[in-house]
Amino acid sequence: MSLMPESGLYPVQSTAVSVGKYLVKKLESIGVRHIFGVPGDYVLRFMDHIVESSMDLIGTCNELNAGYAADAYARLNGVSALCVTYGVGGLSLVNALAGAYAEQVPVIAISGAPKTSAEQNSLLMHHTIGDYNLQRSVLKNVTVAAVTLTADDAIAQIDRAIAACLQYKRPVYIEIPADLVDHPCVLPLRKPSLSVLQSKPEALEEAIAEAVELLENAHSPVILAGVELHRYGIQSQLDRLVEKTGYPVATTMLGKSAISEMHPQFIGNYVGALSRDEVRDRVENADCILCLGAILSDTNLGGFTAELDPTKLINANLARVQIKHHFYSPIHLGDLIDGLIEKLPYRAPETLNIQPASCLLKDNWEIAENAPLTNARFYQRMNTFIGENDIVIAETGDAIIACIDLLIHQNTKFIGQAFYMSIGYSLPACLGAGLASPENRLVLFIGDGSFQMTCQAVSTLIRNGIHPIIFLINNDGYTIERMIHDGPYNDIQPWKYHLMPQIFGQSWSTEVRTEGELELALAETQSHTDKLCFIEIHLDRFDCCDRLAHLTQTLQ
Amino acid sequence: MSLMPESGLYPVQSTAVSVGKYLVKKLESIGVRHIFGVPGDYVLRFMDHIVESSMDLIGTCNELNAGYAADAYARLNGVSALCVTYGVGGLSLVNALAGAYAEQVPVIAISGAPKTSAEQNSLLMHHTIGDYNLQRSVLKNVTVAAVTLTADDAIAQIDRAIAACLQYKRPVYIEIPADLVDHPCVLPLRKPSLSVLQSKPEALEEAIAEAVELLENAHSPVILAGVELHRYGIQSQLDRLVEKTGYPVATTMLGKSAISEMHPQFIGNYVGALSRDEVRDRVENADCILCLGAILSDTNLGGFTAELDPTKLINANLARVQIKHHFYSPIHLGDLIDGLIEKLPYRAPETLNIQPASCLLKDNWEIAENAPLTNARFYQRMNTFIGENDIVIAETGDAIIACIDLLIHQNTKFIGQAFYMSIGYSLPACLGAGLASPENRLVLFIGDGSFQMTCQAVSTLIRNGIHPIIFLINNDGYTIERMIHDGPYNDIQPWKYHLMPQIFGQSWSTEVRTEGELELALAETQSHTDKLCFIEIHLDRFDCCDRLAHLTQTLQ
Repeated sequence: MSLMPESGLYPVQSTAVSVGKYLVKKLESIGVRHIFGVPGDYVLRFMDHIVESSMDLIGTCNELNAGYAADAYARLNGVSALCVTYGVGGLSLVNALAGAYAEQVPVIAISGAPKTSAEQNSLLMHHTIGDYNLQRSVLKNVTVAAVTLTADDAIAQIDRAIAACLQYKRPVYIEIPADLVDHPCVLPLRKPSLSVLQSKPEALEEAIAEAVELLENAHSPVILAGVELHRYGIQSQLDRLVEKTGYPVATTMLGKSAISEMHPQFIGNYVGALSRDEVRDRVENADCILCLGAILSDTNLGGFTAELDPTKLINANLARVQIKHHFYSPIHLGDLIDGLIEKLPYRAPETLNIQPASCLLKDNWEIAENAPLTNARFYQRMNTFIGENDIVIAETGDAIIACIDLLIHQNTKFIGQAFYMSIGYSLPACLGAGLASPENRLVLFIGDGSFQMTCQAVSTLIRNGIHPIIFLINNDGYTIERMIHDGPYNDIQPWKYHLMPQIFGQSWSTEVRTEGELELALAETQSHTDKLCFIEIHLDRFDCCDRLAHLTQTLQ
Repeated sequence: MSLMPESGLYPVQSTAVSVGKYLVKKLESIGVRHIFGVPGDYVLRFMDHIVESSMDLIGTCNELNAGYAADAYARLNGVSALCVTYGVGGLSLVNALAGAYAEQVPVIAISGAPKTSAEQNSLLMHHTIGDYNLQRSVLKNVTVAAVTLTADDAIAQIDRAIAACLQYKRPVYIEIPADLVDHPCVLPLRKPSLSVLQSKPEALEEAIAEAVELLENAHSPVILAGVELHRYGIQSQLDRLVEKTGYPVATTMLGKSAISEMHPQFIGNYVGALSRDEVRDRVENADCILCLGAILSDTNLGGFTAELDPTKLINANLARVQIKHHFYSPIHLGDLIDGLIEKLPYRAPETLNIQPASCLLKDNWEIAENAPLTNARFYQRMNTFIGENDIVIAETGDAIIACIDLLIHQNTKFIGQAFYMSIGYSLPACLGAGLASPENRLVLFIGDGSFQMTCQAVSTLIRNGIHPIIFLINNDGYTIERMIHDGPYNDIQPWKYHLMPQIFGQSWSTEVRTEGELELALAETQSHTDKLCFIEIHLDRFDCCDRLAHLTQTLQ
């Protein structure tokens, strides 16, 4: 997607449009097809413009869920938008937008606000604390642009904010006072100029030369791919680099599915000491690690158990490249990769002794019919259940760690908050993913503690005709916290989880305790592809994946 | 409650205590008996201190619900505390704390945080965006003190923050890095000095004299009581003033139950044009209005339909008194009331032709057995259902407006966000109220749209053995928004609401459509006082109270 595909916005015979209409047209022009939100009186007139547009307004049960849904939608669609009322609405978004900020997700958050005259008269309006700068003051902390539209400058403000969102792949905030929605504004004569990141040619040339030399001299090079490849839409360049060089490639947890995990050169997710031994050995013993677009955070690297020798590391992020202890900047990650494709010689992957991750798939899965289901056996079984067409969404906690070796068949088909790790994210994320990619089957793994955070999102899935298969892993409490440090605070109320979808609407749900019951349930989902399927998996209280135990020790 | 009843905290043989222990002892000393929260790794060690204390840690399903619960607890208990983890936890509190700030509720919000060393090493930790000032920067906007504890100064920081909370009756924020929880700190030699508001004697004398003269010359004076009377614990002074002067007394919506609504001089809630005609006439035609501790906001005054002649108004808030166009400051509201009690002559209420609100109660309630239930008839019926021992909680939207004429029998037994108006508040508020006042029966009125926001709070009520009677008023969508401006965004997914409590645990629930069914259900609650009762009331989609229609017109 180009940064500003806004053809047709500024016709030669331009006339005045309203601020609300302009914003809606702008969102349409950058590819937003659904807007998530919750109504409230300060934003109803703007919502009318959405209703009249080509976009669908997707009502969620609360604002946090709108924020999470918009986050996942943007991961798949390239950008997203949401729309809420002032105060009670916008201030409920902070956590969701902080997550999007941390993980580089471009979300446009729009909020109604009291009329300009209310502020001018110092009136105490509902949904406020009497300070009409409050919401912008709060949200500017978790966005790369935060504006309150004014009558004089609304178009430029909108253009700049949305340009920042697309350029930096982070959230922005646009506040529309209720009386400005239908205020006419005149289109400017010129489109806004965009400052797109340009590599400095000399720095780029020098960086490529140094990287090529290091890689050519390496006997056992490896690529470690991160999330920025996906966010900046340069995954196809990674594919070409991998083909040309023959190198094995791993991804970080947040970068998971930056390349198809069925690719014969894909060796697995590298998450420090949480990785499979083969993956860890290959990455940490490489004599040159080409790290592309990764966020080096604690959980993304197995709680800082990663041991990446800085003298063997070429660490390239979107705007700069670090080799040993020096930096090249500004360098666009895409330009660097293009340069490497051009300069590095072809090498056959067979010369590099690669053990592909896809060898994890076992053809013959034997069921122990009456054996109680265990965490390990469940996720092993999932590796053959997941197919070509699936998007996998993994909740923070045991689920996302257990998915380290779950193979994702296509690019960008794994969603999970591997860095920010807000529990409750995945259910609304499933809504966003389903609307962004209706052609894919959605498979969601979520624990019971997380489910209690945002359970009403199941209702919104059903309402919008989205039909994921939800695996609710019930191990009676906050298992990840139990592993870190147990106490009575990690207990939760036991719910009859599998009955809940039926409260919300058309759905199919069941609960399973044994391997045999799981098989029956999996088979039955085939008969229910026209509705949401919900399978409650009962596990022992302390039955979590080995790696979670390992991670949580490092976090203490 | 005195501001700082901390006897025993600083023994003569004082030894060092840990920061976590000190904070826990401090909370105990000011009367906190329950702390609401959600665990997370940055706060688990502090939670251990809570578990070891005399306080109960009340786990909620998510942080927003902890915030709302703490808000209601503070309204009844005088102060409250909550405890969450960093980022995903603290940033989910903003809306709840903004509501507490707006409505003057003293909530102490405590958050764990990454270790001090993480910040010093510029590490990227989970639940952060890499900026370790973020959460304090955000929350300082909705609190009167926001501190990150340091090893050198923790005790003074805690003392100052909690003193600010108690003095200003607004939320404060205390952040504890994980490595400081068990860090020893030495108790200071002297208790912290508190700046308690003191009236300026000359200003007080002059203000009292002017007010007395205006009131003595009035033929038809009236008292309009607001929420600050309750927050600052000076309701008994209001009672004495009312007894002495014989004046009729009304309350604002946010001040509802500042005086018992069965008091023979209580005439009703004054909410501008939404008031009963008798109340509006009495207040607006008074020749002197003594307005005590009211927040003059839009919804609190019927969407600015109030017509209070400023030349007839004595408007006293906590720290200042306005008469006509001049101010007296600093003046403590309690000192002013004491002065008025002393200086004003006794007057028999019979001389003032007062029509008490309690005349709304009808002894003979005739049921039209098969008649479909209507909003008006339902709330009229509630006026005789509500008893002496009840706390009434009304959700934002139609419910709180419909409660304008629902009589509350005792002081401070009505809870609703009449100013900030965040929907979803009331369910978690019910949890806070139930723990703060276990001796009262709780009656909650909530609409379907609001219920969908925070429905999981019902689980936490059941888990904690709290047994409210919840009336879920199902009119198929956001009725208050429909009245303001209707569109498809006001539709919601229809749930089988009355089945939901059974997902969560022990409860009794039913649904009713006719007056006869309502009577049966009300009678049956008597047999289920040992569990949560949930009655789903089916109403027509546009059947709301007349006043809501009136209010919403003023908000357009």
